[in-house]
Amino acid sequence: MPAEASKPAPTAAVLIIGNEILSGRTQDVNLNHIAGKLTALGIRLLEARVVPDIEAEIIDAVRTLSGRYSYVFTTGGIGPTHDDITTDSIAKAFGLPVVVDPTIAELLERHYGAGKVTPGRLRMARVPQGAMLVDNPVSAASGFRIANVFVMAGVPAIMRAMFDNVAPTLATGPAILQRSIACHLGESLLAEPLEAIQLRHPDVDIGSYPWFRQGAFGVSLVSRGTDAALLEQVTEEIAAMIRDLGGEPVFES
Amino acid sequence: MPAEASKPAPTAAVLIIGNEILSGRTQDVNLNHIAGKLTALGIRLLEARVVPDIEAEIIDAVRTLSGRYSYVFTTGGIGPTHDDITTDSIAKAFGLPVVVDPTIAELLERHYGAGKVTPGRLRMARVPQGAMLVDNPVSAASGFRIANVFVMAGVPAIMRAMFDNVAPTLATGPAILQRSIACHLGESLLAEPLEAIQLRHPDVDIGSYPWFRQGAFGVSLVSRGTDAALLEQVTEEIAAMIRDLGGEPVFES
Repeated sequence: MPAEASKPAPTAAVLIIGNEILSGRTQDVNLNHIAGKLTALGIRLLEARVVPDIEAEIIDAVRTLSGRYSYVFTTGGIGPTHDDITTDSIAKAFGLPVVVDPTIAELLERHYGAGKVTPGRLRMARVPQGAMLVDNPVSAASGFRIANVFVMAGVPAIMRAMFDNVAPTLATGPAILQRSIACHLGESLLAEPLEAIQLRHPDVDIGSYPWFRQGAFGVSLVSRGTDAALLEQVTEEIAAMIRDLGGEPVFES
Repeated sequence: MPAEASKPAPTAAVLIIGNEILSGRTQDVNLNHIAGKLTALGIRLLEARVVPDIEAEIIDAVRTLSGRYSYVFTTGGIGPTHDDITTDSIAKAFGLPVVVDPTIAELLERHYGAGKVTPGRLRMARVPQGAMLVDNPVSAASGFRIANVFVMAGVPAIMRAMFDNVAPTLATGPAILQRSIACHLGESLLAEPLEAIQLRHPDVDIGSYPWFRQGAFGVSLVSRGTDAALLEQVTEEIAAMIRDLGGEPVFES
C-alpha cells in the first residue's frame, strides 16, 4: 500500500441552515452535491445536520461539528435579509466580532454605483473578523472561511460555485472508490453470504441498499474503499454470490 | 384566539441513518416528505441529522434528539443485512434487549412458508422489547415505535406508507399555514422594509428565499403562521411593499 494511503483521511460535516428545509418547502440538494464532491476528494463526510434560523441552534451545531471534524461546510442564511443570521451566529460561535470587509464593500460599490450601497446592501459585506473570503462567479454574494468552517450560500448554483473555489484548498485523502452491483434477490436471502464477504474484507465497506422501482424490488450492493484491486476482488465475490443464489448480477458502476 | 391554538405545538426531529446519504450515492427525499407532513399536522420539525452506519453515532443521536423533542422519526437501516444496525442501536440507546416479535415472525412464516424462515429472514422480526409495530402495505418489513421514537424504512415508498400509518397516532398542533409571494427584486433592496413588516408581526415567521432559475434571479417571500387572517394581512403588506419598490408580486401559494 503506498504511504499516502495510510494517512488518516480528513473528515467533514455539513450544516444546513434554514427553516425552509425543515418546513418541507424546499428539497435540499446541497448535501448530496457536497457529499459526492467530498467522496471524490477522499474526505469522509461523517455527519450532516439541518437546523432552523435560530441563533443558539446554529452556534451550538457549529461549535460541536467544528470541534469534531476536519472541516465543516455550512449552507444558507448569508443573504442580507432579517432571517439571514448565519454570519452573526458563526462569529458568536468563535467569539469574534462581525466587521465590514473592505474587499466586498468595494465590490458592492462597483456593482451598485458610488453612494448606492444602502445599509441593506452593505449587510452582504459583513463577515467575522479574520475570515477569508470565498468568491463565486455567479453572484456578488461572498462566502467565507473562518477556522475550519466554510460558510456558503443556500442557492444551489451559488453554493456549487463557492464549493468549486474551496475544493482546491482542502487537504485530501486517498480517493474513495465505489463499485455497485444490483440484483433482484431479496435482502434476507443475501444477508448471510454477504456478511461473510464483509467479514473477510474489513478494509472494504459493503452496503446493501434495497430499492423499489416500477413495481419491482431489487437491491444494490455497494462496495467502497481506497484499494482498487481489493475492490475489484470484492466485487467479483459479490457477483459470484449472486449467481450462486440463482440471481443475475447487474454491474451498475 | 381559540384555546387549542395556545397549546404548545409538538416538536420533532428526523434522524436519517445511512452511509449512502453521506457518500453522495443517494439523494435523500425522506426528510422533505416527513417535513411537509409534519408541517401540515402542526408539528414543528426543529432539527434533522444524518449519521453513518456506526452504532455509537446512532445511539448518541437517538438519545439527544429523543430527550429534546416530542417525537423522533428515523429512516434507514432496518433491513436484514449486516449494515442494518438501526434496531440494535436504538435498543441500546434505551437500554432494552432485542427480541423476536411473534407477530412479525408469524407474518414471515406465512409469507415464506412453514420452516422456510431462515436466520437471515428472521432478522426482520427483531425489535427492541416493548416496541409497538408500524405496519406497511408495501412490503413485509415492519417499522416500530419505542418511547417517542418512530423507526422507519429508508426506501421512500415504504417509509411513506409507514408514516401514513403513524400519522393518526401523533399529537398535533394548530396547522402551520404558509403563503408565498415571488418577485424579481434584489434581496438587499427588500431587506429593510421586509424587516419592518417582520417586526410589526412577531407571530408570523417571514422568510426570504432567493432563487436562480433560467438565468434570472428572484426571491420568494414566505410567511408562516397559524392565524389565517393575520397571514392574509402580512401577505398583503408584503405585496404592497413589492409594488412600492417598483416590483411585481407573483402569488405562488
